[in-house]
Amino acid sequence: METLVSAVAATLTTAAFIPQALHVIRVKETRAISLFMYVAFAIGVALWFVFGTMIGNWPMIISNAITLVLALAIIAMKLRYG
Amino acid sequence: METLVSAVAATLTTAAFIPQALHVIRVKETRAISLFMYVAFAIGVALWFVFGTMIGNWPMIISNAITLVLALAIIAMKLRYG
Repeated sequence: METLVSAVAATLTTAAFIPQALHVIRVKETRAISLFMYVAFAIGVALWFVFGTMIGNWPMIISNAITLVLALAIIAMKLRYG
Repeated sequence: METLVSAVAATLTTAAFIPQALHVIRVKETRAISLFMYVAFAIGVALWFVFGTMIGNWPMIISNAITLVLALAIIAMKLRYG
């Protein structure tokens, strides 16, 4: 049950960054995006990844790895589009 | 150690949404924000909150409660500014 809840939670909080990344690619504009938010968020996600490995929770490990990549992509676009 | 890592991770992934919310309030513009992202994200955060209660991890419980409020505030501003 714990694994099920965390799997669904992980899927949603990870998948959420896919439309956000695609959205920024489409509108080619990032004025409303906070760079400070995404940098702090990326570091936090990296630590959740570490925590996931500590408690051996696979949904947490995999989802945070994917979220980290998406957050870094959004940071890259923010730096490009300003 | 697990609690320390999750506490720092929780602080960062929660605190990240504070500059994002303030940023949107300041620029009064949300074109780069994906509504779909924040709705999916808010549901996911609510489930992480449930998972936190299941494993009795306080940093996860508290941080997800705060993140949920911030995500809902960003959704409200997206609906207002479009």
